[in-house]
Amino acid sequence: MRATVLVRPKAGILDPQGQAVETSLRHLGFAVDDARVGRLVDLDVDASDAADARAQLERMCEQLLANPLIESYEIELREDG
Amino acid sequence: MRATVLVRPKAGILDPQGQAVETSLRHLGFAVDDARVGRLVDLDVDASDAADARAQLERMCEQLLANPLIESYEIELREDG
Repeated sequence: MRATVLVRPKAGILDPQGQAVETSLRHLGFAVDDARVGRLVDLDVDASDAADARAQLERMCEQLLANPLIESYEIELREDG
Repeated sequence: MRATVLVRPKAGILDPQGQAVETSLRHLGFAVDDARVGRLVDLDVDASDAADARAQLERMCEQLLANPLIESYEIELREDG
């Protein structure tokens, strides 16, 4: 099952990369605000059903993909694949 | 208008970070495959409507947020904010 995990800095956590992106975009003339940079992981999970896939992905996030102290994560599952 | 830009390595482009994530997840016992790592940017765009916001975000991607030679991008707009 194909899944996407979105990992973002939690609200209130400093995000220097987001600030750098915001500053650069403004220098380019764009009227932007509150930019935050996170990461995403697309992957295939061998799972019996969507609930199993989601449970596995939550464990992956807790163990490796995110730092739960400072990051939040969101799991998206695709119908196909 | 709040937007999210998803940036991913294009198909066929080597993704060492994705390979490292895949190897680590397998070592932890997860049956995963074809992991790819990208990044995301959440930001507020000052735009008159959704079409204007999308046009601005495409220019931001071409100029700064993505490397169009090796990365593809996807733009998501939120209804609120």
